[in-house]
Amino acid sequence: MSKKQARGAPAGAAVPAVLDGIPSHDRRSFLRGGAILAGATVASAAGITSAGAQRLEVAASAKEMGRIIDAEAYGMPSKFEAQVKRRRSDVLKNRQNWSDWSMSPLQDQLGIVTPNGLFFERHHAGVADISPDQHQLVIHGMVKQPLKFSMSDLMRYPSVSKFYFLECSGNGLTDWTKAASTTVQQSHGLLSCAQWTGVPVSTLLDEAGVAPGAKWALFEGADGSSHARSVPMDKVLADAMIVWGQNGERLRPEQGYPLRVLIPGWEGNVSVKWLHRIKLGDQPWHLRSETARYTDPMPEGKWRQFSFVMECKSVITRPSGGMKLAGPGNYEIEGFAWSGNGTIKTVDVTLDGGKSWRQARLEQPILDKCLTRFRYTWNWQGGPAKIASRAVDSTGYVQPTVAEIAKVRALAGFVQHHNGVFPWSVSEAGEVKNAVA
Amino acid sequence: MSKKQARGAPAGAAVPAVLDGIPSHDRRSFLRGGAILAGATVASAAGITSAGAQRLEVAASAKEMGRIIDAEAYGMPSKFEAQVKRRRSDVLKNRQNWSDWSMSPLQDQLGIVTPNGLFFERHHAGVADISPDQHQLVIHGMVKQPLKFSMSDLMRYPSVSKFYFLECSGNGLTDWTKAASTTVQQSHGLLSCAQWTGVPVSTLLDEAGVAPGAKWALFEGADGSSHARSVPMDKVLADAMIVWGQNGERLRPEQGYPLRVLIPGWEGNVSVKWLHRIKLGDQPWHLRSETARYTDPMPEGKWRQFSFVMECKSVITRPSGGMKLAGPGNYEIEGFAWSGNGTIKTVDVTLDGGKSWRQARLEQPILDKCLTRFRYTWNWQGGPAKIASRAVDSTGYVQPTVAEIAKVRALAGFVQHHNGVFPWSVSEAGEVKNAVA
Repeated sequence: MSKKQARGAPAGAAVPAVLDGIPSHDRRSFLRGGAILAGATVASAAGITSAGAQRLEVAASAKEMGRIIDAEAYGMPSKFEAQVKRRRSDVLKNRQNWSDWSMSPLQDQLGIVTPNGLFFERHHAGVADISPDQHQLVIHGMVKQPLKFSMSDLMRYPSVSKFYFLECSGNGLTDWTKAASTTVQQSHGLLSCAQWTGVPVSTLLDEAGVAPGAKWALFEGADGSSHARSVPMDKVLADAMIVWGQNGERLRPEQGYPLRVLIPGWEGNVSVKWLHRIKLGDQPWHLRSETARYTDPMPEGKWRQFSFVMECKSVITRPSGGMKLAGPGNYEIEGFAWSGNGTIKTVDVTLDGGKSWRQARLEQPILDKCLTRFRYTWNWQGGPAKIASRAVDSTGYVQPTVAEIAKVRALAGFVQHHNGVFPWSVSEAGEVKNAVA
Repeated sequence: MSKKQARGAPAGAAVPAVLDGIPSHDRRSFLRGGAILAGATVASAAGITSAGAQRLEVAASAKEMGRIIDAEAYGMPSKFEAQVKRRRSDVLKNRQNWSDWSMSPLQDQLGIVTPNGLFFERHHAGVADISPDQHQLVIHGMVKQPLKFSMSDLMRYPSVSKFYFLECSGNGLTDWTKAASTTVQQSHGLLSCAQWTGVPVSTLLDEAGVAPGAKWALFEGADGSSHARSVPMDKVLADAMIVWGQNGERLRPEQGYPLRVLIPGWEGNVSVKWLHRIKLGDQPWHLRSETARYTDPMPEGKWRQFSFVMECKSVITRPSGGMKLAGPGNYEIEGFAWSGNGTIKTVDVTLDGGKSWRQARLEQPILDKCLTRFRYTWNWQGGPAKIASRAVDSTGYVQPTVAEIAKVRALAGFVQHHNGVFPWSVSEAGEVKNAVA
């Protein structure tokens, strides 16, 4: 019995009432495609109908009692998922562990929420373990009344919870013009998304009273590096939050427990962790993190400071580097799109290295400065292909190619803010590889 | 200097551009209230301005390098959050651990996403540890073509990710008419919410072909209890999903790894875990879980079967049982509202045991069959109070009182489906207690 016959006549089959996010023409073609169920084993009618001679197999797990668990212990993933974890860089190898980073396994992520245990992290002087009972936040500088808050003071304020992505400005810097990374975890894994809970910074500044002429805010962490950044007041008042919660629980230590600032849509390093001080001033502080680091080389030999926004970007996470397609047939191309300037409007996918583009499906909810998941059902015929995605955000900005970025910036040295279109090649054997060249 | 003076003149203070979810009149009154910053320490101007004689204190954590972490290990909460964990029942004590349940710490939950490590769980024969490579799903019975799927077969299909709450039908059964539970974790903690990833059941049934006359689907688990339930086809085709993902990663073992069905908005036990079989038939199977269990006693002495829907409900999680208010002042009343029949339209809060009600703020996104967070800023004057919430869903259904439920059902024995208004008392000393009576 061929697989095509085995799938049975669709006539008379129930028509689903709701199938969110999947246009019906896509879905029908998926079901009718020639090799859709390439991997599905079809039982013979005699095998698994209840009247058949051959009985249904009883699973081994149903023949015995299960494991007794410590129901009150903090729950952990299955032992069969041990390979799904953050990973350090394979390309830029550290010689010590004080200043380090680890990347999120985007190829395994489902939905738009990154679990806290897999959320990417970057630290400059190890991870501080701060008791919330001892922690204080000071607001001073160009304010009418300096203030000092304990954690319990802060948690008395009306809080808000918002979904926002967080991305390191260095995400992708190893793969501008040559294929250095093997997997999407290595090329794009300094990216995650969570629902953050805390209080708008504006609420606290309203308490302190902003002095006339205050234009910048300094956010400083209480870690060993005293990492700090200057942020313009307009952004601070627009949507910056002081957060203690991430994905329903308190921040993890490596995310700044007990307190960080969250600057939505801007490069991750301004969302200062272990936050203990906000100072207002009339100009930026020009810290090392604003001169020697986190700046962009420009064509005329100058360096651009304060390029905060993570602009519109997308990447295909499945199939991606290191995976192998099992054979011709239908595959779901999946990935993330995001923009520090708003919501995602459309995502297009190419199968031929950018010659032609097809519109992907976007999944609800589509939120401001949040990961948006896109999907495109691809009937792979077995030939070589070059796949990539290109996102457009609510401002109309189109994710550029690296060639387009190179016209306005210099791609030399340790270059941040890579939001270019990123290609994967698929060989005739189905092997998926980084296709940057 | 009094606290009122210390907060400084609001005149000239920056007006925040965006403050989502908090009507400006509420917010202004919060900031101007008499005892708002009850807990906040106000530094003297000489103390913490940069020109002052007294220097800012440098945090101990900033004077040393932090902890070197194993960046590739699965991340865990701070050691200071060890008390935030699932708990077994204090009221109904088990004599063994095979059939058990543990409840989610709702009083500590932030936002609407319940972390997987804190997600409530119920198991009937321990927890099965099933290798995904060995697991299979069979679809048979009244289908045109029985089918058998491996996990990798299933994961080839176009998947969807949706936020849905999950609630056990027994949630609240200890507290119908007497105050048995001390905390909201004990009274309402069989409730959680996640983003689930998988494939609509309708897609798979379309492959198998539904035979004419099929009206019910049996879902059976591969655990030691072979837990199973009958579900009407209308619901199965409307929005049931076969899921392998929860909050961005694969299901946890206690949530049915590697596969469960998710029946949105219906009592948790129909979302069968460790799913390995779907059988279609023309009538329900009347299993023990549908006769001796999960039924509702009615006034005339009969028992109602198949009362699947978790109807509109809400509860205040902060302040809640076991907490203590620090003294008169402004407090955020917070809680969850949800409905198995749609979205939440409004939530009202009472401070006087139901004599009068005030509208709470609802936080976006407000999603179908999902937890919605409500907030109400309460200026507590220090007198005794009785607080509760009451939700209305998109069908117009109003969350009832227990007295109203008692008119149409019998509250005798092990009674499921408690969606009544739930009160907490606040004493003059600020002690919060279960006020069911």
